[in-house]
Amino acid sequence: MPDLTPLLAFRWSPRAFDPSTELDLEEAASLLEAARWAPSADNLQPWRFALGHREDETWKRILTCLPLDDQGWARHAAALLVGAHTGDDGRAAYDLGQAVAHLTVQATALGLHVHQLTRFDRAGLAAELDLPDDIRPLVVVAVGRLGDPYALPPELRDAETALRHRRPMASLLLG
Amino acid sequence: MPDLTPLLAFRWSPRAFDPSTELDLEEAASLLEAARWAPSADNLQPWRFALGHREDETWKRILTCLPLDDQGWARHAAALLVGAHTGDDGRAAYDLGQAVAHLTVQATALGLHVHQLTRFDRAGLAAELDLPDDIRPLVVVAVGRLGDPYALPPELRDAETALRHRRPMASLLLG
Repeated sequence: MPDLTPLLAFRWSPRAFDPSTELDLEEAASLLEAARWAPSADNLQPWRFALGHREDETWKRILTCLPLDDQGWARHAAALLVGAHTGDDGRAAYDLGQAVAHLTVQATALGLHVHQLTRFDRAGLAAELDLPDDIRPLVVVAVGRLGDPYALPPELRDAETALRHRRPMASLLLG
Repeated sequence: MPDLTPLLAFRWSPRAFDPSTELDLEEAASLLEAARWAPSADNLQPWRFALGHREDETWKRILTCLPLDDQGWARHAAALLVGAHTGDDGRAAYDLGQAVAHLTVQATALGLHVHQLTRFDRAGLAAELDLPDDIRPLVVVAVGRLGDPYALPPELRDAETALRHRRPMASLLLG
């Protein structure tokens, strides 16, 4: 396996978050700044974000739109961030993906972990956050410090400590 | 401005690439490996890639599908990579965006620079690379080492050395 920079090699998506740590304002600002400086087609920057810190009003509105079984672990993350995009073509979603990836790299640099969720009640979240029609929420990003995997319910614990898998490289290459 | 990890802070999208350096096989493998380990919804990994090294057959096929004014500078990059996705929803494009962002971070770690292009002849490229109907090319990524900005045509030189701009943070935050 080729060498990867540690900020990528050590990145993974946990469900065990430490329920006692918070995201301070400096950390939150640097995560959003990382997203802000991502590249985008024609520099349109089609990404928009809503950030809720644990127990605040925005956090509650985001949390209630997640599937119940995800709420169980996601509520322990220090913050929940909604990633949304303007426009309705694939390029806007693509650029949002880049921005959240940059945010994730910055989170790793800060010793934080990220777990993204794309299965949630989009219409409900748009209503809860009073989003205009042209702002499309696509992802909810749980951010926090790693917690104790043994505090997870048994059915999640195994996945937490399992080996990670990806398709073989050859299957990704065209032509 | 909050601190960013150097791999993000020093990233930008040049047009001046050094026409004499090549991308070696180890570098190419690590770029693709970075993309391969990106996160994706349900671990579907909807990204697919075609990589052309300068002057090889794949490179020629990719280059001819770029707008003429982009061909002028993109031909000096060490490699041209097509990023495509399976599926037709925004989540697949989003995940491709994450994968290319991870590749870009790895490129920065290797001392390489990346410039992405989303304006190209998609149908032409799908035909040139003989892509199946369900593989949708979305981006062409020029990768290489920084070159001399004074070797660029005058109309590109100013953009190359201009300050970078982003929307103010407040305009990105919802609610």
